[in-house]
Amino acid sequence: VSHDPILRLVNELSLLPGIGERTALRLALHLLEQKKEQVMSLAESLVEVAKNVRECTTCCNLTAYAELCTVCQKPGRDQSVVAVVSCIQDLMAIESSASFRGRYHVLHGVLKPLNGIGPDRLRIDALKHRLTNDVAIEELILATPATVEGEATALFIRETLKEVKALKMSRIASGVPVGGDLQFADRLSLSRALLMRQQIIE
Amino acid sequence: VSHDPILRLVNELSLLPGIGERTALRLALHLLEQKKEQVMSLAESLVEVAKNVRECTTCCNLTAYAELCTVCQKPGRDQSVVAVVSCIQDLMAIESSASFRGRYHVLHGVLKPLNGIGPDRLRIDALKHRLTNDVAIEELILATPATVEGEATALFIRETLKEVKALKMSRIASGVPVGGDLQFADRLSLSRALLMRQQIIE
Repeated sequence: VSHDPILRLVNELSLLPGIGERTALRLALHLLEQKKEQVMSLAESLVEVAKNVRECTTCCNLTAYAELCTVCQKPGRDQSVVAVVSCIQDLMAIESSASFRGRYHVLHGVLKPLNGIGPDRLRIDALKHRLTNDVAIEELILATPATVEGEATALFIRETLKEVKALKMSRIASGVPVGGDLQFADRLSLSRALLMRQQIIE
Repeated sequence: VSHDPILRLVNELSLLPGIGERTALRLALHLLEQKKEQVMSLAESLVEVAKNVRECTTCCNLTAYAELCTVCQKPGRDQSVVAVVSCIQDLMAIESSASFRGRYHVLHGVLKPLNGIGPDRLRIDALKHRLTNDVAIEELILATPATVEGEATALFIRETLKEVKALKMSRIASGVPVGGDLQFADRLSLSRALLMRQQIIE
């Protein structure tokens, strides 16, 4: 730790993802040009978050102050279906699509064996435990990303959980994005869209 | 201010330059995945900086704990020459070139009349004051950037200060970057390099 508080701040900021040393310096100098109150307020937010935010005991979503996250607290949610997502951002994306009324389970990652991220690093044990204890759950939607790692994670979860409980399990659909021209879709999405075509007349 | 500490942190982070809401969310969630100690340490750095960093009373560079910045404190610096720079980063760049032994004056910006940044927003009065009081200063190197605004700022300082004190004043050279092929230099730098050509034989 440097004795110069500016350098120390630059070092701390450059630990953040996507922030190199030059950007960290720019951010630090920007903060120094602001009113002290703004900097103190950011510091308070960080302390607040470090002290009060933890994982929901049910779904591993993040929650502040309470044991249960805001989704798990909501009384209107469908208790029978759980969407398994890889991260909070994906949960937020599904929430803002307003097309899902069930609850979630957040894995906090996808399997990346080459980076040392195995099943024990994800919240898969917590999901097993939840399925065993919560009799209301009847369906699992595996909503991990449509990437190689996301597919592998979904497959792993399917194989692991099918022994745990008799459940309906599904995988989110992939294909061409809605509202886009076919010519601009990437080749993989296009070939997936053809492969996964839906019969509309028998 | 939001009641949800995560949203509050996202809001605070998105006030930083070049950080949109999506990046702010990514940074906040990254911080939440870290050990509490790392987040607290970043918070402490911010408090430390907010409390202890201020402008050097002589040159307006930033300084921690002391009245004078590290450059002004150094005994070996040439007291007769002052480089006027627009920002801390430029000061750091000149320092790391190890080609200047004088002292600095940091303006904290360049003139941008359209954005409401007039002479009163820069540290020009402090420079005037400094020139009046410090008899050792004999030369001013105007090292503001070679941009329209940087040139205008240099011109303004020249006009303002020539009444204050009889001084040698110079402007840093601009031209083609050293070590680069001419074909890759931008047109403005190239035309400046031709215009500012140095006679090598009479």
